Amino acid sequence: MELTGKSFIGFRRGSYQGKILYGFNPATGEQLPPAYYSASLEEVGEAVELAARAFAIYRHASGREKSDFLRTVADRVEGLQELLLVRTPQETGLPAARIQSEIGRTCHQLRLFADLVEEGSWVDARIDRGDPHRQPNPRPDVRSLLRPLGPVAIFGSSNFPLAFSVAGGDTASALAAGNPVIVKAHPAHPGTAELVGRAVLDAARDCHLPEGVFSILYDAGFEIGTALVTHPLVRAVAFTGSRSGGLALMAAAASRPDPIPFYAEMSSINPVFILPGAMRENRDHIAAGLSGSVTLGAGQFCTNPGLVVMAEDSEGTAFAEKLRTLMGNSAEFTMLSPRISSAYRSAVTTRSQHRHVKTVVEHTVSTAPGGCKAGPVLFLTDAASYLSHPELTAEIFGPSTLLVTHSNREQLLDIARTLEGQLTATLHGTGKDLGEFRDLLEILETKVGRLIFNGFPTGVEVCSAMVHGGPFPATSDGRTTSVGTRAIYRFVRPVCHQNFPDVALPDELKDNNPRGIWRMVDRAFSKDAVT
Amino acid sequence: MELTGKSFIGFRRGSYQGKILYGFNPATGEQLPPAYYSASLEEVGEAVELAARAFAIYRHASGREKSDFLRTVADRVEGLQELLLVRTPQETGLPAARIQSEIGRTCHQLRLFADLVEEGSWVDARIDRGDPHRQPNPRPDVRSLLRPLGPVAIFGSSNFPLAFSVAGGDTASALAAGNPVIVKAHPAHPGTAELVGRAVLDAARDCHLPEGVFSILYDAGFEIGTALVTHPLVRAVAFTGSRSGGLALMAAAASRPDPIPFYAEMSSINPVFILPGAMRENRDHIAAGLSGSVTLGAGQFCTNPGLVVMAEDSEGTAFAEKLRTLMGNSAEFTMLSPRISSAYRSAVTTRSQHRHVKTVVEHTVSTAPGGCKAGPVLFLTDAASYLSHPELTAEIFGPSTLLVTHSNREQLLDIARTLEGQLTATLHGTGKDLGEFRDLLEILETKVGRLIFNGFPTGVEVCSAMVHGGPFPATSDGRTTSVGTRAIYRFVRPVCHQNFPDVALPDELKDNNPRGIWRMVDRAFSKDAVT
Repeated sequence: MELTGKSFIGFRRGSYQGKILYGFNPATGEQLPPAYYSASLEEVGEAVELAARAFAIYRHASGREKSDFLRTVADRVEGLQELLLVRTPQETGLPAARIQSEIGRTCHQLRLFADLVEEGSWVDARIDRGDPHRQPNPRPDVRSLLRPLGPVAIFGSSNFPLAFSVAGGDTASALAAGNPVIVKAHPAHPGTAELVGRAVLDAARDCHLPEGVFSILYDAGFEIGTALVTHPLVRAVAFTGSRSGGLALMAAAASRPDPIPFYAEMSSINPVFILPGAMRENRDHIAAGLSGSVTLGAGQFCTNPGLVVMAEDSEGTAFAEKLRTLMGNSAEFTMLSPRISSAYRSAVTTRSQHRHVKTVVEHTVSTAPGGCKAGPVLFLTDAASYLSHPELTAEIFGPSTLLVTHSNREQLLDIARTLEGQLTATLHGTGKDLGEFRDLLEILETKVGRLIFNGFPTGVEVCSAMVHGGPFPATSDGRTTSVGTRAIYRFVRPVCHQNFPDVALPDELKDNNPRGIWRMVDRAFSKDAVT
Repeated sequence: MELTGKSFIGFRRGSYQGKILYGFNPATGEQLPPAYYSASLEEVGEAVELAARAFAIYRHASGREKSDFLRTVADRVEGLQELLLVRTPQETGLPAARIQSEIGRTCHQLRLFADLVEEGSWVDARIDRGDPHRQPNPRPDVRSLLRPLGPVAIFGSSNFPLAFSVAGGDTASALAAGNPVIVKAHPAHPGTAELVGRAVLDAARDCHLPEGVFSILYDAGFEIGTALVTHPLVRAVAFTGSRSGGLALMAAAASRPDPIPFYAEMSSINPVFILPGAMRENRDHIAAGLSGSVTLGAGQFCTNPGLVVMAEDSEGTAFAEKLRTLMGNSAEFTMLSPRISSAYRSAVTTRSQHRHVKTVVEHTVSTAPGGCKAGPVLFLTDAASYLSHPELTAEIFGPSTLLVTHSNREQLLDIARTLEGQLTATLHGTGKDLGEFRDLLEILETKVGRLIFNGFPTGVEVCSAMVHGGPFPATSDGRTTSVGTRAIYRFVRPVCHQNFPDVALPDELKDNNPRGIWRMVDRAFSKDAVT
């Protein structure tokens, strides 16, 4: 399949007019053909208008039609496996095994949402039956369900070229809810984006969906992305990326004449607290797990554990020593792009020069052609220094973490209290520790979307109960998750029908419950028909 | 019970330092003692800090504890009936019968949320069980549920001195979710606010809840309200009021260093479409219902029908004539406040001078002492004029409506297409009309929160299925409702526990399901224990 370098405006291909970007091999420093051309502002308008027209049809697609589409996308992405295993490692530096597993995750996500909308109960159908005899006024018949919002703009991430990109979790959940999607392709993997984008569009054609249900736009800068977020017909935005990029687009969405929902997953340091019993009983095991989690995927995960809190004692010293050995012996990594690796090196340099921070491991790396090699870095400081230097709370995106030793319980709690909103927090403890540090857990519950016990934050399970979100600034909207089936609720709103005849109601609200879904009928859950 | 004129800072009363405001009798023009004193900025801080401390306890209140509290509030509000039936009509101009029914609605709302949280399934508990043997990685045990956000600031409305004020729907839903509440009392009914506020605080004491779970602040201007919205410890805001007020506070919430959820219910013209069959068959019946809906409560409802669309034909002419008679014979009304009645008079004057608008009814009113008398006003224009003069789409808050006649279907659809987001849209039609105007319904479904068939938008039923919300600018966040049990979802976020021992989980997530709630276990709804 030949790569063409053009945006997809519905089923058409974009023009060749815009600024040029290229894929780049971070392992070799090679520029990867073909040239990719930024979309024009006119093409943004065309894609969004096609999406708005497609919405008039696609919002009525049945659960079965949407699930067929999502499953066809998954099948077609699997069909791309050979091509993706060549192109994606080239433009990301990620190993083939990771790409393989990411293809699996991407297709699992698509099929999970397919199952969800095929089953159908997710629409939260509610029926309160009327009573014409109620005094002093008749009670109306009131029925409501969740409906899609309209065209959704999605900004793919750099670090998940498949699972959080063109056909990733945001796209799957927005399409499952009945919204057309316009993807702004991440410039770090344009070829992967084109391959997957073509698969999605082929699936849309296979399923006889209207043109505009899906488009992809390339953007060498920020103009096209901003135009998408501010286009009057775009009804919601999902973004995965840096805090600065997320905040800029968040402000653009909020300052529209009609502000729209904006979901950004931005930054998190994912603190890990090692409690005394666990440190005594599982020290080496925790060190091994932590080293693996910090360095997984060259540390380029939003759930990377960037802060580790433990007591300042001989156990802690032994733990730091163990971690020093493990991380010091780690291989060097290729990071995703020159921009990310240079930001990592710069952040590491700044922190290693901090007068209150000791650099325990700083892996020297080879000067490879791509300039994107990086090694793991382990920092150490004490709680008093950490608490009085807010710059130490900043995320370093890459295979690095900061050990903080505390000398008393109040310091430990203060570290928890001063945390910004986070995606996750992890506790390592015995059952006894959990009882003794209930107050720590209490604080963390108000700060994060996910609490992990005796595990590590990397490796986000895609399931119904997952919460991958958290209070600002971990995300722009802490009421939501971008992973798991609850992600669909970002792209819907409730719509109510009062006193409509059965024939004019959506199937989910009809008396005889033709979809056979769970509904709330007169305040009780039921799959029964209404009589 | 003597009124004191002081804010409530937790269980304490405010100081006497701030700017003064008085209740005002719009029927007589009398100022009503006592003087009410604006809270100080220091008192805002105290109230919010008390709320944040109370949150540490109240967020763990069981469904039973919260339902006891809400029911005790309802009982105590009912106990105030005699006092409210004296004071509230005085400071609102609303008749005693309306206050009586609003007390009923307020207590119904409180008890509806009490039932919801006592039953408990609303928390959307989800359990995905782990599998230590899964390859290549074990599957973690992942469990999640909805948790409260923290202190919520609530701005009471002027037009529902009970049902959307101190102990109204916003307060009931925020408290039900487990959030402390700080109310900014509406200056148009300070005495009612004090009576109800004392009832809520007495109920909090009766139920042994922590100080700070509820406070009320008076504000003669905007300073205290703005300070609440921008206070770092406030986690969400709900507001019912004008578009200008809502937009100003919405911008303040969005420009915080940490933006917070902001729910404003602002403005809506609630279009009514009368289709040909219904006009032929039910003309007089519709005219009578519409006249009643336009003038109900002196038109001071967010669901007031401010736009009526019908064909330009002899039936339409007869309908307009019928409506002219009905509205022309209507009694005059006392509006809520000098500010509202003067805004109404000014908007009516402007519209009646519009060169494309005919004033069919303009009720001259007596010059009563309060200066707040108003009469119903009926305007008429044609679709071409309406479509080319956007100023005609503005809401006029009061007993007025605008008839728009169209001469073809495309004009009818254009009127629908150009609508801003609305709380409601109403269709009057026969079964045949519904089939023939499916395209109109399609457009309206994307514009509103609630569709009404052969009824009127005023009279919002409080139930599980109700949606009182709608796309911007009807509300600031069209994904939500402020009436009905779904309103609770404005004040929660999902929190996930991964691999926690059963003993450390919230009751709703424990294996044996001690609360006996509906849960989603391994993707299926169930009330069973997990084994």
